[in-house]
Amino acid sequence: MSCASVHIRTLATLKEEGQESKPTFNFEAYMIQKAKSINQALDAAVPLKEGQKIQEAMRYSLLAGGKRVRPVLCTAACELVGGSESMSMSAACAVEMIHTMSLIHDDLPCMDNDELRRGRPTNHKAFGEAVAVLAGDALLALAFEHIAVSTAGVPLTRVVRSIGELARSIGPEGLVAGQVADMSCEGLPVSEVGLEQLEFIHLHKTAALLEGSVVVGAILGGGSNEEVEKLRRFARCIGLLFQVVDDILDVTKSSEELGKTAGKDLVAGKATYPKLMGIEKSRDFAEKLNKEAQSWLSGFDPEKAKPLLALANYIALRQN
Amino acid sequence: MSCASVHIRTLATLKEEGQESKPTFNFEAYMIQKAKSINQALDAAVPLKEGQKIQEAMRYSLLAGGKRVRPVLCTAACELVGGSESMSMSAACAVEMIHTMSLIHDDLPCMDNDELRRGRPTNHKAFGEAVAVLAGDALLALAFEHIAVSTAGVPLTRVVRSIGELARSIGPEGLVAGQVADMSCEGLPVSEVGLEQLEFIHLHKTAALLEGSVVVGAILGGGSNEEVEKLRRFARCIGLLFQVVDDILDVTKSSEELGKTAGKDLVAGKATYPKLMGIEKSRDFAEKLNKEAQSWLSGFDPEKAKPLLALANYIALRQN
Repeated sequence: MSCASVHIRTLATLKEEGQESKPTFNFEAYMIQKAKSINQALDAAVPLKEGQKIQEAMRYSLLAGGKRVRPVLCTAACELVGGSESMSMSAACAVEMIHTMSLIHDDLPCMDNDELRRGRPTNHKAFGEAVAVLAGDALLALAFEHIAVSTAGVPLTRVVRSIGELARSIGPEGLVAGQVADMSCEGLPVSEVGLEQLEFIHLHKTAALLEGSVVVGAILGGGSNEEVEKLRRFARCIGLLFQVVDDILDVTKSSEELGKTAGKDLVAGKATYPKLMGIEKSRDFAEKLNKEAQSWLSGFDPEKAKPLLALANYIALRQN
Repeated sequence: MSCASVHIRTLATLKEEGQESKPTFNFEAYMIQKAKSINQALDAAVPLKEGQKIQEAMRYSLLAGGKRVRPVLCTAACELVGGSESMSMSAACAVEMIHTMSLIHDDLPCMDNDELRRGRPTNHKAFGEAVAVLAGDALLALAFEHIAVSTAGVPLTRVVRSIGELARSIGPEGLVAGQVADMSCEGLPVSEVGLEQLEFIHLHKTAALLEGSVVVGAILGGGSNEEVEKLRRFARCIGLLFQVVDDILDVTKSSEELGKTAGKDLVAGKATYPKLMGIEKSRDFAEKLNKEAQSWLSGFDPEKAKPLLALANYIALRQN
């Protein structure tokens, strides 16, 4: 079976399971409207000051586009548990600042040494390595300042708990742990990495900040502990799903279709799901993760759960 | 007049003004006892986990010694306004984590490219550049997690306000702004930098985190707004004082006396106070800053103000 036909079959299967049950929800319009609000808030959060190179460097990467998946997850989780968009907007901006920081530092010559990001020079290519390191640091600090200073209409217990959750999701037990584990596996024979280690990497490197985004939104919106924990499990599933789909796309799509270099993992000798379990089983695993993610949304108001349901399907079905 | 005699005169003058007015306070014993508590708390905050390289890298720089000036300032300010050491201990650990992050990133090849710090290899020399970048990021994230999760016995309004203050002191309006301004002045003729620009650099690069440390301590201890603002001014003075003294030491002391390379600023072509105003006026300026710093402590309980008074004198009189 060709790679293309595998992919079409995946799409068809997932469409049956997911999208057809909610024909009334316009996901594209939802994402466009949310991204617009988030971009406006981000623009206001890092104002450009005359002659301040650091703000310029921060804005260069922060406002470079992107689908704003993490902040949308944050506001959607907040609204799902009964909160309003405005309650989580500062936190949503914070998670995007943190995500941008991780991309800037990841692209550095001493890390992935990437020269292009979203079709234009990476931050260190545009501003130099030193400013790129500092722009990342400044975005990380600003994220916590923003959530502490600008969150409004929310009890302080929720704000403090959110800061703790978000910080944990990116620290030595979160995102950073995944990046270090990923680096330590580079160059190892695939057989030596194993599924358990691969899952550790992705649960930390990719899923942790998605989890942080969802959990913080749920906390700020006033979700019960049970609701927060269900949404945490949902986020972990879509985090892992995101990475499995990424791995599949890397071997089944052309660079043109992806808008980035295809086959990168193969060239880099990286362990991936298709390499460890084959493409068929990777596809099955993605379907299983999407199903499990959606099951964690049961019990919530079905109307309000539509955005997160659609986001899970979007992550499963994306083509680049 | 030789450099050495200038220095002895500075010491004598400052001793007259400061230390003799409080003969009963044993500053050395105070610092040793405080550093011990802080080191124990830092050790517990970043436990070493089997096979976790990132924790090892974080601990390598965090527990490498140092006088713990920032955390001591934090707890001293807290106690000055009527709080207890334990109320500010998590924040004190956080400011030391942030300070360590800034040293690790500052030492990177793309920044100052230093190979030695406190007599042993810098973090990137010991663990590689990628891990050093990530260890800094992880320390920054952990700092905010720690203050949010571990601060106990303090109303949450103070915790949230502290997080906002601390984050602002290191972000694009704080420490990072100073580092960027410093880099942009490198290589410029000293005459083109000017005192105003030099003061901007030091108020941000050095004073901002000292200010953050003191202000956060005062907030957590329950200081009134007036007390917090007086201590903010105190901290700015000692921050600038720290840098003026550093500049003086760089030209008046040998590498052996300093325990680090002397004359570095001269070699690097950096603007310094002695270069811009001469050594005599720099000395006068240092005295003026120490006096002003101490004046901001008037109105507080004189007994409780002794540690901060002694810290100001310590910064003014230090020999390395």
